[in-house]
Amino acid sequence: MTVALLSIGTELLQGEIANSNAQWLGEQLTSIGLHVVRIESVGDDRAVLAATLRRLLAENHFVIATGGLGPTTDDLTAEVAAEVLGTQLALDDDALATMRRKLEKAGRIVRAGHVKQAHLPIGAEILPNSVGSAPGFVLAQEERLAFFMPGVPTEMRAMFEQHVVPRMMPSAKNDSFRIVLHTYGAGESIVAESLDGLEAAHPGVLLGFRITGPEVDVKVMGRASNQADARRLVEAAADDARSRLGSLVYGEGADSLPLVVARALRSRGWSLSVAESCTGGLIAREFTRTPASDYFVGATVTYTNAAKSKLLGVSEDTLRGHGSVSAEVAAEMAEGARRTFGSDVALAVTGIAGPTGATPDKPVGLVHWAVAHPGGTVVNMRVFPGNRIQVQQAASHAVLDELRRVCAAVRVSRPSNRGLGPNG
Amino acid sequence: MTVALLSIGTELLQGEIANSNAQWLGEQLTSIGLHVVRIESVGDDRAVLAATLRRLLAENHFVIATGGLGPTTDDLTAEVAAEVLGTQLALDDDALATMRRKLEKAGRIVRAGHVKQAHLPIGAEILPNSVGSAPGFVLAQEERLAFFMPGVPTEMRAMFEQHVVPRMMPSAKNDSFRIVLHTYGAGESIVAESLDGLEAAHPGVLLGFRITGPEVDVKVMGRASNQADARRLVEAAADDARSRLGSLVYGEGADSLPLVVARALRSRGWSLSVAESCTGGLIAREFTRTPASDYFVGATVTYTNAAKSKLLGVSEDTLRGHGSVSAEVAAEMAEGARRTFGSDVALAVTGIAGPTGATPDKPVGLVHWAVAHPGGTVVNMRVFPGNRIQVQQAASHAVLDELRRVCAAVRVSRPSNRGLGPNG
Repeated sequence: MTVALLSIGTELLQGEIANSNAQWLGEQLTSIGLHVVRIESVGDDRAVLAATLRRLLAENHFVIATGGLGPTTDDLTAEVAAEVLGTQLALDDDALATMRRKLEKAGRIVRAGHVKQAHLPIGAEILPNSVGSAPGFVLAQEERLAFFMPGVPTEMRAMFEQHVVPRMMPSAKNDSFRIVLHTYGAGESIVAESLDGLEAAHPGVLLGFRITGPEVDVKVMGRASNQADARRLVEAAADDARSRLGSLVYGEGADSLPLVVARALRSRGWSLSVAESCTGGLIAREFTRTPASDYFVGATVTYTNAAKSKLLGVSEDTLRGHGSVSAEVAAEMAEGARRTFGSDVALAVTGIAGPTGATPDKPVGLVHWAVAHPGGTVVNMRVFPGNRIQVQQAASHAVLDELRRVCAAVRVSRPSNRGLGPNG
Repeated sequence: MTVALLSIGTELLQGEIANSNAQWLGEQLTSIGLHVVRIESVGDDRAVLAATLRRLLAENHFVIATGGLGPTTDDLTAEVAAEVLGTQLALDDDALATMRRKLEKAGRIVRAGHVKQAHLPIGAEILPNSVGSAPGFVLAQEERLAFFMPGVPTEMRAMFEQHVVPRMMPSAKNDSFRIVLHTYGAGESIVAESLDGLEAAHPGVLLGFRITGPEVDVKVMGRASNQADARRLVEAAADDARSRLGSLVYGEGADSLPLVVARALRSRGWSLSVAESCTGGLIAREFTRTPASDYFVGATVTYTNAAKSKLLGVSEDTLRGHGSVSAEVAAEMAEGARRTFGSDVALAVTGIAGPTGATPDKPVGLVHWAVAHPGGTVVNMRVFPGNRIQVQQAASHAVLDELRRVCAAVRVSRPSNRGLGPNG
C-alpha cells in the first residue's frame, strides 16, 4: 500500500516556506506502518496540478494533498480534484452551514471566499475541520483514495489525525516497530563500532544512524509477522544497544537533552540557575521553551568582565590572571550564580564563539564550562569546530550533558518543595 | 525554461529531516529569474529514481538533483543517472586524485567508499566540491541539463553557487525584480488595505503578502522587458508602499528585527542590556546569534521575585503592590538593568507565557514591557494569543519594535566608543 504526498502552492516552489506539512505527514505515516514513496510539490497551476494528480492516483493507493483550498481565485485544488476524478463542484449546504456557525461564533460573517470554500466535488466525503473554517474532503477512485486538506499546518494536522488516519488504518501494515535512542558524547563511527554485530545477534532488526547537530541518533527498527513480535524484537535489541552504549544514551523518542535534564532536576527537587557568556541566552532559552518555573530560578548573560564581577562575584584577580575564557572563571561564574540566585545547582559557560575574538593561545571554538552543585564544582573544556551558531549549540549541549552526568552521579534525596515565582 | 528539483533519500519520505535543500534552491533559482515548476522527493529505490529522473528530464530544461552520492551501497544516484542518460560509470582518475589530496590534507586515508564516489558517469562534467570530498556532476541530453549534487547542505550550496549557477545563467530570464518589505505592528488585512490601488497605480507590479509569525511581509514584484526596467518599476512601487505603510515597515530583504535594532544601536553608539522574565532568554539569544559584543553588555532572566529584587533592584513594595507581571515592575526591571549593567539603554519583559500562571485579572498571554533610555522609560503592554512559544515570540517582537521606535525618535548623537569585553 503506497502513499504519495502532494503539496500545492507556488510559495513552496519559490522557497518562501519550508514544506513542513510533508515532513510531518511522512513521519506520521511511517510511524503507523504506511509506505510513503514520493513527495511532490507543484504550484497553483491548473494543468500541472491536474496531470500530477492523475499520475499519482494511477500509481498509488493513497494520495494525500495539502494546500490550495483557500478562499482566493488562485486556490484551485477542489476544482482540479473534481475534474481529475470525473465529477463537478457544487455548493455543499451542510459545509456552508457549518462554516457559518463557526464564523458567527467568532464574530465574523460569511463572505464570498467562504462560499467558494463550501463548493466541493459532488460525491466527495467531507473531512471536518476542527481548527479552522474550511473543510477538507476525500474522493475514491476504485480502491484508491485521494485526501484533500488545507495547507495551514494546525488545521491539516488535526484533520489528518481525526479523519484521515482512521480511513487509512485498515491498510496500515502494523508489522514493524522502532525505537530511537539519543546519544551525546561520541561521533557516529564510535557509536556504530560499539554496535558492531548487534544486527547479527538480533535477526530481523536493522540499525540506522542519524546525526543531528552534536548528537547521534540510533534507530533500532524491526519487522515481524505482527507488531507485537516486532516490538519484542526491537526492545531486546534496544536493551542490548543501551548496555553497549552506556551513558552515551541520554534518552529516547521525544526526549531532548533539556527535557531529560529538567526531569533529573525535578526528581531531585533541585533548582537551577544559569550563567552564560558566549552562548548568549541559548541555554536559558532551551530550558524555558516549556514551563520551567518549578525548578528554573534565573540566568545571567554577562558579556563584559564588569558584569561577571558585579552580578556573579567573579574576582577581578581571576579575570586578570586567567582571562575571561578560562576554567577558573567558568567555575567562579557557576558558583556565583548558585550564590546569587540561591539555587541548588548552577551551570556556567564562557568561550569564544567567533568569528572574531581569538587570541594566540585561545582559538575560536574554545569553551570552558562548569557545574556547581551541593557536592562541589565540575569544570570541563573543549575546542568546538564550526561557525558561531554551531559553537554555541555545541557548548550548550556539552554543559547540559555535564549537568545530566552530575545529576546521575548524585544520590536522589527527598525532593524539597521550594516555592518559586510566576512567569513559568 | 523550467526547472525541476529532485531530492533523493528515504529519510526525506519518512520525515526524518526537512527538505531544506529544495527550499534553498527554490529561493535561489527564483531570485535569478528561473522558473521552478516542481519539487519531487523519492527514496533510495532504483526503479522509482530511474522513472522519476526520466520523466523530469523529458518535461524540463533543467533537473537539479541532490543526495544519494554518498559512499554506501544505498547511494544509487550516480549509477541511476548513468543508466537513464545512456552511459556507464567509470573510475574518474582526476576525481579520485582530488579526493585523495583533500583527505590526506585532513589526515585521513582513501577508503573503498571514496573510490565508489569517484566512479562517475562517462561523459559527465565534474562539479568540484569546495567544502567536502565527493564531487558532483552534470550530464547533458540534447539541450537539457541534469545536475547532480551531494545532499549535505553546505557542500551543495557552495557547489550550486560556484558551478551550477554559471551554467544556468545564460537561460535565466532576468526580466523580473522583487523587493520584500518587512512590517510589524498590524495584521495582514490592515497592511493590504493600506496598499489598495497600488497595483493599479504601478502597472506591471504585483503585490504578495506573507505572514511569518507576528510579521507581515509585503512582496513587491514586477516584470518588464528587461531587469533594469523591472527594477525601476518595483523600486517606485516599493517607495509608494513605504510611504503608505510608514513606520510599520522596519526593514527589507535580509533584514530581521534584531539586526535592524542592532544597527540602530550601533549608529547611536548605544550599549544595550536586557532584563527578561517570561521570554526566558529568547531576546538575548536573538541579539547574540551574530557578533554583538560591540553593543550588547548582558542580560538577566529572573523568574523569581527574589531574583528581580536582587539582580535588578526591583522594589519589594512594587512587586507586592502590583504583582510581578505589571507595567511598574517592567519599568523597574528595565531601569535596574540599565543601572546594573551600566548600559545606555535597557529593555525588559514580564508576562505570563502559559499554559499555567493565569490569575482572575491576569490572563495567559498578558505581557508588559519597557524600554529605559537616556531620556526616560517607555512602557507598553498587550495580551498575545497563542501557545507558550507564540506568546514568547510575540513578546520578543513587541519589545524589539518598541526599542526600534525609541531609537528612531531620539536624535543621533556622536557615537561613543566604549571598550566592551570579549565573548562577542
